Amino acid sequence: MAIDYDKLMNWPFGQVEQTYTAKDSILYALGLGLGADPLDTDQLRYVFEEAAGFAALPTMAVVLAGPGFWARDPNSGISWQKVLHGEQEIVLHAPVPPAATMVAETKITEIIDKGADKGALLYQQRTLVEKTSGTKVATLYSTTFARADGGFGGPTGPTRPVHSLPDSAPDGFCDLPVLPQAALIYRLSGDPNPLHADPAVAAAAGFKAPILHGLCSLGVAGHAILKTCCDYDPSRFKSLGLRFSAPVYPGETIRTEIWRDGEVVSFRARVLERDQVVLNNGKAVVAN
Amino acid sequence: MAIDYDKLMNWPFGQVEQTYTAKDSILYALGLGLGADPLDTDQLRYVFEEAAGFAALPTMAVVLAGPGFWARDPNSGISWQKVLHGEQEIVLHAPVPPAATMVAETKITEIIDKGADKGALLYQQRTLVEKTSGTKVATLYSTTFARADGGFGGPTGPTRPVHSLPDSAPDGFCDLPVLPQAALIYRLSGDPNPLHADPAVAAAAGFKAPILHGLCSLGVAGHAILKTCCDYDPSRFKSLGLRFSAPVYPGETIRTEIWRDGEVVSFRARVLERDQVVLNNGKAVVAN
Repeated sequence: MAIDYDKLMNWPFGQVEQTYTAKDSILYALGLGLGADPLDTDQLRYVFEEAAGFAALPTMAVVLAGPGFWARDPNSGISWQKVLHGEQEIVLHAPVPPAATMVAETKITEIIDKGADKGALLYQQRTLVEKTSGTKVATLYSTTFARADGGFGGPTGPTRPVHSLPDSAPDGFCDLPVLPQAALIYRLSGDPNPLHADPAVAAAAGFKAPILHGLCSLGVAGHAILKTCCDYDPSRFKSLGLRFSAPVYPGETIRTEIWRDGEVVSFRARVLERDQVVLNNGKAVVAN
Repeated sequence: MAIDYDKLMNWPFGQVEQTYTAKDSILYALGLGLGADPLDTDQLRYVFEEAAGFAALPTMAVVLAGPGFWARDPNSGISWQKVLHGEQEIVLHAPVPPAATMVAETKITEIIDKGADKGALLYQQRTLVEKTSGTKVATLYSTTFARADGGFGGPTGPTRPVHSLPDSAPDGFCDLPVLPQAALIYRLSGDPNPLHADPAVAAAAGFKAPILHGLCSLGVAGHAILKTCCDYDPSRFKSLGLRFSAPVYPGETIRTEIWRDGEVVSFRARVLERDQVVLNNGKAVVAN
């Protein structure tokens, strides 16, 4: 079944509403590995609801009020078994509240046909608005790579520009370990895909063990930037975008390599144990 | 303000009802450290809701439908700042369901006056009944040591018998590491006491760092027994009782030392790093 361009561009996502609590915000932070040093007071505001300045991590926006795995609906015409999360960008208009009711609207903004042998790119956009105040909190942009769905006769471009990293050596790096049980904790924040928990499902998909959620790796890189470029102040974290390039296994160490240029932070992340780049073409904007 | 024996013996705990889900059961298991090996399929049933035989850990009974920190009510007459959790016993009448609505009744069964300089012992009992089926799941017995509340003129005995450990060397042991962030994960199962999260609160109480919940240490010893004596089969785990003797710091390793005598398992637990006994006079009953 082929993609129907007009149908997908008008896919009825509807409004999604999610109420979450301080406990949910803490659980998200614990899934990323915060709280690993019981005496670290910088991280306390993200893992303890009575801490001064208690806050949600900025990257938590990606787990709020999502549309679920909608591509699995047979009416979508998408070969959902062949889709990959290709890119993700988070633009924050206001800090993510640590407890709130969030309302989201999702739409597909463009579908690029890369050809029958190359697949399709679906560009999706989600806006998060806090229900009570009406504050627009974040806009999320994601690119889904539908590997088996090219050649449907849609537009062949333009694709979203990719952020180029500097040619120079990084200005610095931040190593953060990923707990062996990180995927089991992270999945409680709303992505129950068994690929991240069940060794048999992971093996069937060609992996030696359950893999970490891509969005968890993104959160670890976000933590690295929050730590090294924002002094753990969530209000200084303005945006983050990147390309997913390879999976991480829980238990590995993620090194985020960072270039600074004023408010612009370029970055990529690699797994130290395998020297494999897992997140690439990263760009964040931070307030100085 | 002194303890009023009759008032406490008739304390109006009321019925407490708690609905919990698979996510709550998984979170409890993760707080105890299960899931540390992503390829371990023995533990999968406790951390992954789609696993074969998905179950709650037997010791989870202690966090269900509790009466809260009722001693803090000024009407109790208890110097709540001076109370310690002295003993805990769990008797399972049926496996703890991994998701259910549990109804609990709590009562104080006796208060022993050890004298003005020695404090009081409060014996408390809680029964857990699954609401839908009416199945009696567990009876919980706890001893609170109210250090500042002796000399109220109450009965001076008898105290509950304590289980004596064999004089011989243990038959075996089981070492389980406690994550540095274990207390932060465990407290999401319902005990938000800042002593387990905030370094400043811990320091004010005389500890070098936030301490682990005593009931989390109990859960780790329960895990050790489930692993070594029950092959991770929750239906074989019948009861567990122990005395708390010292706190554990997150990040330490708990060694549970075990003596087997048919269905009776005697145990104690020590922190390897400090060679300190933290749980003592332990007795569990398991089906062979």
